[in-house]
Amino acid sequence: MMKVAKHGGNIYEVALERGIEMEEILDFSANINPLGIPDSLKEAIMDNIHIIERYPDPEYKELVKAIADYHGVDQQWIAVGNGATELIFALAASLNSKNSLILAPTFSEYERALLKAKSEVHYYYLKEDNGFQIDEGFKKMLNPEIDLLVLCNPNNPTGQFLKRQQMMEILQHCREHGIRLVVDEAFIDFVEGGEMETMIACMHEYNHLYVIRALTKFFAIPGLRLGYAVTSNENILGRIRDNREPWSINSLAALAGEIVLKDKTYIQATKNWIGEEKDNLFKALNAIEGIKAYKPEANYIFFSYGKSDNCLKEVLLSKKILIRSCGNYKNLTDRFYRVAIKDRASNEKLIQALKEVIYED
Amino acid sequence: MMKVAKHGGNIYEVALERGIEMEEILDFSANINPLGIPDSLKEAIMDNIHIIERYPDPEYKELVKAIADYHGVDQQWIAVGNGATELIFALAASLNSKNSLILAPTFSEYERALLKAKSEVHYYYLKEDNGFQIDEGFKKMLNPEIDLLVLCNPNNPTGQFLKRQQMMEILQHCREHGIRLVVDEAFIDFVEGGEMETMIACMHEYNHLYVIRALTKFFAIPGLRLGYAVTSNENILGRIRDNREPWSINSLAALAGEIVLKDKTYIQATKNWIGEEKDNLFKALNAIEGIKAYKPEANYIFFSYGKSDNCLKEVLLSKKILIRSCGNYKNLTDRFYRVAIKDRASNEKLIQALKEVIYED
Repeated sequence: MMKVAKHGGNIYEVALERGIEMEEILDFSANINPLGIPDSLKEAIMDNIHIIERYPDPEYKELVKAIADYHGVDQQWIAVGNGATELIFALAASLNSKNSLILAPTFSEYERALLKAKSEVHYYYLKEDNGFQIDEGFKKMLNPEIDLLVLCNPNNPTGQFLKRQQMMEILQHCREHGIRLVVDEAFIDFVEGGEMETMIACMHEYNHLYVIRALTKFFAIPGLRLGYAVTSNENILGRIRDNREPWSINSLAALAGEIVLKDKTYIQATKNWIGEEKDNLFKALNAIEGIKAYKPEANYIFFSYGKSDNCLKEVLLSKKILIRSCGNYKNLTDRFYRVAIKDRASNEKLIQALKEVIYED
Repeated sequence: MMKVAKHGGNIYEVALERGIEMEEILDFSANINPLGIPDSLKEAIMDNIHIIERYPDPEYKELVKAIADYHGVDQQWIAVGNGATELIFALAASLNSKNSLILAPTFSEYERALLKAKSEVHYYYLKEDNGFQIDEGFKKMLNPEIDLLVLCNPNNPTGQFLKRQQMMEILQHCREHGIRLVVDEAFIDFVEGGEMETMIACMHEYNHLYVIRALTKFFAIPGLRLGYAVTSNENILGRIRDNREPWSINSLAALAGEIVLKDKTYIQATKNWIGEEKDNLFKALNAIEGIKAYKPEANYIFFSYGKSDNCLKEVLLSKKILIRSCGNYKNLTDRFYRVAIKDRASNEKLIQALKEVIYED
């Protein structure tokens, strides 16, 4: 029986265990845009709070239209969900895979969803010695037994990113061998030029391509829950719709989808922020003795510290800073960590705290 | 393959089809408290909008505590959900029933959830000639084949209500014959003295008793989505938790649960309103020639009109009033309708419109 997966640092649990107020903790464990909820959305919620007195539109027509317009794809190709999570489970249940391949490590809900859907899950083990990149051995893993491949792009927590050309090679291989391809682009909006690399543009290439997106990270609304899937496979979309629970997306999340994708000011401000802070934090981390940080593509940085398992997370918590220990990911140990990229002041506090902890050690 | 069930009147579809603004439609098809969102909740959302920038607590500890305190039961006995719907599906999936018995008609998501969980669904057909009451023949339906009984109390759409003494007789029968008992009390808060009749008080009597509750109707937050299940069966609760998707309840719904159950002013105002309007609307409906209304227990009234199928719903729509045709419920035809009890002015508009339609006929 599956257990509830541990995500981020679970700031609630940490605050309770340590007897500190949640607000006092600087949370680097969840990868959320530090610009916070867009003003446009805040205003829209304040002005439209009464929509929660009605059931949501069971078909979420306005929301679907906003997403389709944003990507320039057919409304028929979109399924919306209560966070990307609902779609991960719905897609796994609908694809009916016998043998699936996922990366190790990767976002853990894919494994849970595939196991729940009775797929045998196979792993492609990313290797530390080549920087957790997919290498030549990858295609060999796509043997005739495999009927479904899931790639998080960028991968979480390692952060490595495949450009569209590389993805197209993989897609072509999948198409030739009848392998369904799921690409999770939950963090692609944070990648520089990410909009040119999305596989949503390649829907006409393969009708067993499924792209999963989340609006929760980029628009800082993880508490509101909103995600979607894009595919040209109407058979699978039909199965997802037929099996879904009604009204799973709350009215304010649906409203958010209609508002935030049009907020060009917020989108640009976010790009400016990530453009400035990504390299700063990456360099500052790598300058600390014993830390090896991997080049970030999205809004989080994966790093190792020391040679054996250690308790950097625990020590930082005494300074009320929460980072993600990656010890519970398959194929990683407690030597590995992930931190969100936050605003300048917070990032500097993290670096300062790490220096104190490591150089005092 | 199941299709998305039709609920209420789907005001979105109706507005689109007719080319009228949704706000112009007087909606009697959804059974929502006309007092609207409690002021206490509105203020709490305005003051705490920034909580959506964080992931919800995966265990929803504060929400669970608020519900447990309200009912005076153990926190361990509560599972919270994205609307009652999530729990209906989670419970059906966890109970693993081979042969279940539900009423016909009843809330349609039980049939969908049980079929999805591969249960064979049997029906106890309520009869018009005894006012859709459960009668002597009911216990005979609980034969050794049946391993799960679902009762909506009050039943939706018919509105008949079983008091605790009657429910206890059924519970005893279920206990003796090893039948799991699910009681859906989504509308019990609207029943006069309903708090004395809830089966939540009987958890210690039977560890295969499961009560489903919704906060969406009484507190007018169907767009926010919040429900819960209560049972002393920790094995089943464990299965529900192990299988659930993380963060399925949005932060504002979780906040709502912490706020509204303590809002005694709103609860009392609602009881005053329903106490006044229920009988008024019931009598006014029955006074119209050709309408037979069934005595309401909750905030909706079930009625038949005419002798053969008719189009009362369609005609009322030309007056921008939406009622629920019950023709798509199992064991009902288009002769049957359900209307919500709304505020005095709206109820009077409904009666006026019905008179115009029926006496002009």
